[in-house]
Amino acid sequence: MSSGFLTGELRIATAGIDLIDEALIDQSSIPVITRWRPPSDPSLAPVLSAIALSDAVTKANEKALSRLTTARPHLIGIEAASDVVGLEKGTFLHAGPPITWERASGPLRGALIGAALLESPEETPASAVRRFERGEFELEPCHHRGAVGPMAGVVSSSMPMFVIEDSVTGRKAYCTLNEGLGKVLRFGAYSDEVLDRLKWMGSILAPVLNEAINTGEPIDLYTMVSEALQMGDECHNRNRAATSLFLRAIGARLIESERPSSDVAACFRFISGNDHFFLNLMMPAAKVTADSARNIRGSTIVVAMARNGTDFGIQLSGTGDEWFTGPCAIPAGLMFPGYGPDDANPDIGDSTITETVGVGGFAMAAAPAIVKFVGGTSALALATTRAMYDITVGEHPLFRLPALDFRGTPVGIDAALVCRTGLVPAVNTGIAGKQAGVGQVGAGLVKPPMECFSSALRRYGVITEQWLSAQRAQRD
Amino acid sequence: MSSGFLTGELRIATAGIDLIDEALIDQSSIPVITRWRPPSDPSLAPVLSAIALSDAVTKANEKALSRLTTARPHLIGIEAASDVVGLEKGTFLHAGPPITWERASGPLRGALIGAALLESPEETPASAVRRFERGEFELEPCHHRGAVGPMAGVVSSSMPMFVIEDSVTGRKAYCTLNEGLGKVLRFGAYSDEVLDRLKWMGSILAPVLNEAINTGEPIDLYTMVSEALQMGDECHNRNRAATSLFLRAIGARLIESERPSSDVAACFRFISGNDHFFLNLMMPAAKVTADSARNIRGSTIVVAMARNGTDFGIQLSGTGDEWFTGPCAIPAGLMFPGYGPDDANPDIGDSTITETVGVGGFAMAAAPAIVKFVGGTSALALATTRAMYDITVGEHPLFRLPALDFRGTPVGIDAALVCRTGLVPAVNTGIAGKQAGVGQVGAGLVKPPMECFSSALRRYGVITEQWLSAQRAQRD
Repeated sequence: MSSGFLTGELRIATAGIDLIDEALIDQSSIPVITRWRPPSDPSLAPVLSAIALSDAVTKANEKALSRLTTARPHLIGIEAASDVVGLEKGTFLHAGPPITWERASGPLRGALIGAALLESPEETPASAVRRFERGEFELEPCHHRGAVGPMAGVVSSSMPMFVIEDSVTGRKAYCTLNEGLGKVLRFGAYSDEVLDRLKWMGSILAPVLNEAINTGEPIDLYTMVSEALQMGDECHNRNRAATSLFLRAIGARLIESERPSSDVAACFRFISGNDHFFLNLMMPAAKVTADSARNIRGSTIVVAMARNGTDFGIQLSGTGDEWFTGPCAIPAGLMFPGYGPDDANPDIGDSTITETVGVGGFAMAAAPAIVKFVGGTSALALATTRAMYDITVGEHPLFRLPALDFRGTPVGIDAALVCRTGLVPAVNTGIAGKQAGVGQVGAGLVKPPMECFSSALRRYGVITEQWLSAQRAQRD
Repeated sequence: MSSGFLTGELRIATAGIDLIDEALIDQSSIPVITRWRPPSDPSLAPVLSAIALSDAVTKANEKALSRLTTARPHLIGIEAASDVVGLEKGTFLHAGPPITWERASGPLRGALIGAALLESPEETPASAVRRFERGEFELEPCHHRGAVGPMAGVVSSSMPMFVIEDSVTGRKAYCTLNEGLGKVLRFGAYSDEVLDRLKWMGSILAPVLNEAINTGEPIDLYTMVSEALQMGDECHNRNRAATSLFLRAIGARLIESERPSSDVAACFRFISGNDHFFLNLMMPAAKVTADSARNIRGSTIVVAMARNGTDFGIQLSGTGDEWFTGPCAIPAGLMFPGYGPDDANPDIGDSTITETVGVGGFAMAAAPAIVKFVGGTSALALATTRAMYDITVGEHPLFRLPALDFRGTPVGIDAALVCRTGLVPAVNTGIAGKQAGVGQVGAGLVKPPMECFSSALRRYGVITEQWLSAQRAQRD
């Protein structure tokens, strides 16, 4: 027996079914797993081999990776959705790919009703439902307006939104402010308590915070993310450290505010009472980052993953604005007391934009404490991150993992690698109750449907067929 | 080969020299090491075997452990040293066991000079030195007044001190406020910049913070420590998360302060600019905890470890207020740019009180990012904590380690286990420059001298000889 076997790191390679991986992770604290599976779809073999042989695809993906890893999103202000994304009254943004009222799940319908009541006090829930049913209200994905929204992700014209600017490209992205836990719009609740909070956020929180943001330098969000990853956050389902760092950045500015100190203190307490507050900064930071990698000819890199509670959709850099969808799964994790798996809505929200840029499930190794929230052991946290190196094209230079000796997080999901390995991106997520108004019922891990990636790659093959041939001809 | 060998956790037992341990840690990410060494001192064999056979010692140590793990320190205010520890002008507290000016190291002398200048503006550095040399100023350990101080740990009568109260016992402990990094008194600097900062801390920071503390509930420090351990702090050399959580706790109270907002904002910025701010809250919290475990007849548990830059001293629960000392080692770690090992002062400060209560080096598994500061790999962080279970009598119910699947930190250092295993407590520490006024030159790990534990246990044997015999007779 060579000494390397005893002193070196033990690596276990598994092929095929998940059961063996999962049993190893459960029994062992040595979660180094390299996967191989048969390609998900034999009909993809031609496009996969064309991609594998193409230097041009590699170069296109390197360009996408470079965009993903050099963006530097900053928080520059808070403005109404009507101003920043041009949202008209009667149009409502939502998470995920396009959907109709008929196909919308409970929490999305609840959030849409709530947003309609917020915009038109004369409306009742029943009248709002009728107007949605009759098509008098328009629905549109957040992503189509440069925005993202957690869970239902519903945005209406009067809602304040964070304005995020990438200091490298000048590009912008937007997101509403996080409402906290419990009965909140994003989980489909629309009681008076929910609407009153949204009104307070619009009339007090947003102007107080906006002034604080504007009395100093733009706030560098990726420096915070980088630090939060050294402080136990993965910046999707755990944002406790990042929220703390945001309060540190903004605290002295709030103290200097000339608004009534009771209002300002209420804003500080509201943010401090909600460890997810930073999620709504992380998401548009990720959106502006992922958008910078869009529309690179020949790139197989994923630039959006989003769920509307019915369909899971992805977009690739090389296939423009087309969505490739499959059915949302129900997350597997820990349910809050009083709820069971039957209460869970299928996966919902734009927050998978975090995994798209190399945090969230991809950075779970940074956040062993998250297993208390999503289930599993600390070995699962390490194994989840490690597996993602198999389907990504690079490592993030800023987002480093102390538990992996400061290796960068896996970043740049390659749809070709997903189809070749059969391994889908790991997503950490909150679980919404399937009845409108119930709120969050748990948290867990969820798998995107493989068919999003297969159909995206099939379409990519059609779009790039001539380009790939030309590239090959040029090389030969 | 049984399947357990491949799937179970690999455990490597080493005996004897450190070299093998260290080589394994360097080469491997499987740092589970169980140590055995010959007893450090064969003359201790009789007392060690008497202890091993005694149920009464076990019970005494269980009582000490219970005290160490049930204390709940709260921050209740800030008051001048003259008021809270009765410190007279002309008396100076310092870190570690008792020491004279003649034997004091550079940074301790520098800090004493600075404190003398702070108290008497008519004094010059030269005149202050003369008065210390002539014995006109008194020196006394912080520990003798219920206080603790980081690095030089010098306290003079006008300095403000945090007042910490254990809500279980009502006991109190005290510590000055952390000055930040760079040129600071605790590293022996005494320039005008240092003294001006101390004056500002006395005239602005202390009253502003004290009012904020008093406008709400006492601040529960161990809830913060427990959370910070899930956020990458080990709460000795890394206090970034705990400092953030402290700012979250105090932020809204500061916003509501009626003092000039420019002063209040300066206080917030001062704290936020110093990730070590919480250290000076952690230390007195640990002191009040360790003090609650003092004077338990027959207990071999360590209740203080402290260094004055010359001598490393410890105290045991069962041996009263007597110090057992040995020479301070020079920490091994990473030097700041521009400094080498020759610039390092021997180990200094009362901050080893953190290890005494189960954090610091004992909680390194919580803080893989600290290896950037003290050197080594993330495997070293895990290995350091794991080794400490061999010399402690319990696991902390509040201080839990996500990377070890929420196992409690090792707590209750047993001097008998230290002597039996030859394994000394692991200490994380800052490294002071040996010249007065240079400041911090690095950070690293340091080993207490074995002879502290040997001589403590020898004295314990003398003190408890009759008691141990009586216990044995009673049992037989």
